[in-house]
Order: sequence, then C-alpha cells, then structure tokens
Amino acid sequence: VLVFLNGQFVPEEQAVVSVFDRSFLYGDGLFETIRVYAGKPFRWVQHIERLQRGAEFLKIELPFSTEALRDFAGQLIERNQMKEALLRISLSRGVGRRGYSTEGANGPFLAMTLHPASVTATGNPPGWRLVTSSFRVAVGDSVALHKTCNKLPQILARAEAEEQGADEALLLNANGEVAEAASSNLFWIEHGTVCTTPLASGILAGVTRAFVLELCGALTLPTAEKSLRPEALKQAEGVFLTLSSLEVVPVVSLDGHALKQSPVVQQIQRAYREAVLRECA
Amino acid sequence: VLVFLNGQFVPEEQAVVSVFDRSFLYGDGLFETIRVYAGKPFRWVQHIERLQRGAEFLKIELPFSTEALRDFAGQLIERNQMKEALLRISLSRGVGRRGYSTEGANGPFLAMTLHPASVTATGNPPGWRLVTSSFRVAVGDSVALHKTCNKLPQILARAEAEEQGADEALLLNANGEVAEAASSNLFWIEHGTVCTTPLASGILAGVTRAFVLELCGALTLPTAEKSLRPEALKQAEGVFLTLSSLEVVPVVSLDGHALKQSPVVQQIQRAYREAVLRECA
Repeated sequence: VLVFLNGQFVPEEQAVVSVFDRSFLYGDGLFETIRVYAGKPFRWVQHIERLQRGAEFLKIELPFSTEALRDFAGQLIERNQMKEALLRISLSRGVGRRGYSTEGANGPFLAMTLHPASVTATGNPPGWRLVTSSFRVAVGDSVALHKTCNKLPQILARAEAEEQGADEALLLNANGEVAEAASSNLFWIEHGTVCTTPLASGILAGVTRAFVLELCGALTLPTAEKSLRPEALKQAEGVFLTLSSLEVVPVVSLDGHALKQSPVVQQIQRAYREAVLRECA
Repeated sequence: VLVFLNGQFVPEEQAVVSVFDRSFLYGDGLFETIRVYAGKPFRWVQHIERLQRGAEFLKIELPFSTEALRDFAGQLIERNQMKEALLRISLSRGVGRRGYSTEGANGPFLAMTLHPASVTATGNPPGWRLVTSSFRVAVGDSVALHKTCNKLPQILARAEAEEQGADEALLLNANGEVAEAASSNLFWIEHGTVCTTPLASGILAGVTRAFVLELCGALTLPTAEKSLRPEALKQAEGVFLTLSSLEVVPVVSLDGHALKQSPVVQQIQRAYREAVLRECA
C-alpha cells in the first residue's frame, strides 16, 4: 500500500514521521476519515471544510491547496486500486522547538493513508450495543468541536465499552446530559422527530451528523437539536449513531437495556445509500 | 545528536516513527521531561513512577524494565556529551488497527531524546508574566492527572498567552477556580502558608509540585492544598510556578497586575538548588 507523505507517494513501510513531530509529541494536529465509494471520497468538500476550520483554529497552515489535495487523494486511490476504502488525512503542525510553544513550528506535515472499508453484506452494519462511559466531555468545548489528534477520552471510553462486551461508548457531558459516542454522533427519535445533541453540548461537529440532518430535511422528517438526560434515551422510539465509515448505525441496546427499533432509522439508511449511489455512481 | 529509539541509538535525522503510530494519530501515549544536571537525571524515580502509573492507566506495557531504561538514559547522555540537558521520554501505544479501539495494538514504542537545558546565569529564570486563559480544565479529570500526549488545551493556552506578550497561561477549571498553568503547577503564599491546588482540581500530578511540597516540609514551612478563586491570587504574598525544566519560577504579574514578591519563594529556590547539588554533584 502506498501512502501520501507531504507531496510524495511512498510504500507504507517507509511512511514515517520525525519523533520530533508535534502530533506525535502532543497530539498537535487534526485528521479526517473519509469514506471512499467507487473510488470517490464521499462528502469530500465538507470534510475538507472541517479540516480548514480546524487548521484555522489551531493556526496550522494547510501545505496544499484543496484542489491539489483532491488530486493527490484521487492518485492515492488510483495507484492503490482501492475503490472501497477509508481515506485518512492527517495534518500535523510539524517539528518545532521543545515545549508547548508553537513558535518556530512552521513546517506542517500532511499524510494521507488508505484503509479497507468495513462493510457488511447489506451495506449497513448490524446494530450496536452502547454502554455509558465513565468519561465525560466538557460542555461547550471549543477544542472538541474540531477533529483534533487529542483522542484519549474517546480511546479510553471505547476500551471501557469493549471490556463490557459492547460495541461503542456513550459519553455524557459534565452536566450529565448525553453528548456523543466515542467515534460517532448520537441521534434518537422522539414523537416522530429526529433529534440530536447540540454542538454546544461538547461534541465533535460530525460531517455525517450534518449530512443526516440534511437528509431528514429532504425526507420532510422533523428534526431538533436538544439536550437529553441519559434515562430518557431508553424511552426513545429509536436510537442511532452516525459516522463516516459506517453511515447510520442503529443502537440495539443501552447498558444492556434493549431499545426500540424505528422504521424511520431504516428510512434514513435508505436515503443515505441513495445519496451515495447518486454522488459516487 | 543521537536519539534512543526502542532499543537503538540513531542519529536524529533517522529518528522516525510510523505514520500509523497511535501517538501520531490520536495522542495515544505518555511522556516525561526530566532535567539532567551534571549528567544525572533529577528525580528519575519519581518521573518513572508517574510514567508507570500513566502506562497502567492507559494499559500500555512499558517495553523496558526501569533498570534498563535508566541504563539507556545514561548511555544517551554519555554518547551525546550533554551533561546539562532535558531528557524527554515518549511512550506510545504503537501501531494498531485503524480507529480508536486499542485491540491488537501490542507493540509499544519508546523514544528518548535530549535537548539543551535552558538555564539563566543565576540558575533561576527571571519571573514570568502570567495571563488567564480562556481554556479551562475539567474538575477531577482522571486523564489530565497523567502526562499524556493530549496537550492541545495547554498548547492553545500557551499560544494565547504569548500573543498577549506573556510567558505562561493560567488555566482555571470548569468551576472557575485556579487549576494550573499550561506547562507548570501553581503555588501561592497566603498568611505564610505555601499553598497549591489539589490534584482533584483537574491538574497534572507534577513531579516538581510534589518535590516542592517535600522541600517545604524539610524547611518547616506550612503547606496546604486548596481551591482558590483567581481574584484572590492577586492578594497573595507571592505566587510561583513549578516545572522540571526550570524548577521554581516566581510570577511577577497576573493579567498585567503586578504581584507581591515573597522571600519564601527565594528560600524554596535555594533549597531546590541545594537538593540538586546534593543529588547530582
């Protein structure tokens, strides 16, 4: 497998970065994970726009134009002959002086790697078992909105969930309200309305979250962004997660308690598939 | 300069890590920064114990015994002929599968690098100007206690402080109490008592913080761990910061407001220097 490394294509064994790189030292970087269907990165523009917003927030300059990046991504997919894949873009601040100060760290480093996409026969994964994590997110966290390389709370929450035999962890925020899952955004259906937690609750601004809200608009399903106590999730007509790699994943249980399944979730899954076929045919 | 890379000594140009390394991807690792005086790493045991506690918390296995690590550190100092230095130990979970799950990531990666120590003529740096950051730490944060590679809040706080012409950033916690500075722990003197914020306030368990509390004990200075509102810091008899690289740094101003200077801070600085001379002669 070839890897894109700051302008060059190299075999994965040679895909290395300095141990003085700030993303290695401090998680001082950003990333994107983009699903590639039929050789085309889905929602490319939205992922790149989030990367740009994050880069502006962290004051890291993107070393390539978005056009050049799109071209390199296409070459990477082509040269690796991986048409169904996950494309990860990593943007690090690069090498600087020792310590937290960003002064002098002016050589950003950008890598793109391709990974096999995990798809089930139906195109949709089976439902996930969710457990509530002991880790919490901060309300209104300006850093967490961006897809930064500081992912230890998510990693630890996921490990905790896997130890309990679950698939994914539900993170509450410091107010005790539901926020998001370790690798996905959370939705639920309440009186026919498709609800999700507000960005201010301390969550990542998910590209798939925004796309699902867009799809609901097209399906004329009412939507709402609102806070919720975790107990209330068990009464929902349906609960699902959104993430670029797996689209829309129904939640089958929360802390061992079986959850209701809603036909609305399947309706959204179908609409997602249709959009993929339309945009990546 | 030679770098220690998982068992080998390599020139710094060759000191690289895979772009699939989880510390690069997610900040999934830990580090220590240890001051080396006269060729001897100061408070080595305490730094290694913190690294071990962090590794246990993150479930990363240390790839070397502490005896082997101490021996490699000695070789690194010797071979680089750097007797006055900062030694950074980086411990990453290594390469795993794509995604947050730690499953299959069983090849931890450990690097040690040496950096020039920043010392002033007096052995003590001049006082630092502190400004209050807009970034906050979470109260009782179990992750923040460990020296993990998730340092974006600290990096952003430091950048904010430098933009304002200050040296260091003061971080409050979500309750609005003072917690710590971006790269250092906070102390102040109140009615002759040397005070610092409790570990539960959301701070890093600083090795130098613990050592200074120990020094105060030996000096028979009363100490206390307590919460404080930021306004009260301006009334303190003296304010100082502790960090391994620079020992004890007096704070000269907070948000542009000049702070009182206490002879107690110099007393602690002298005791620190004496301990260094005693242990690293």
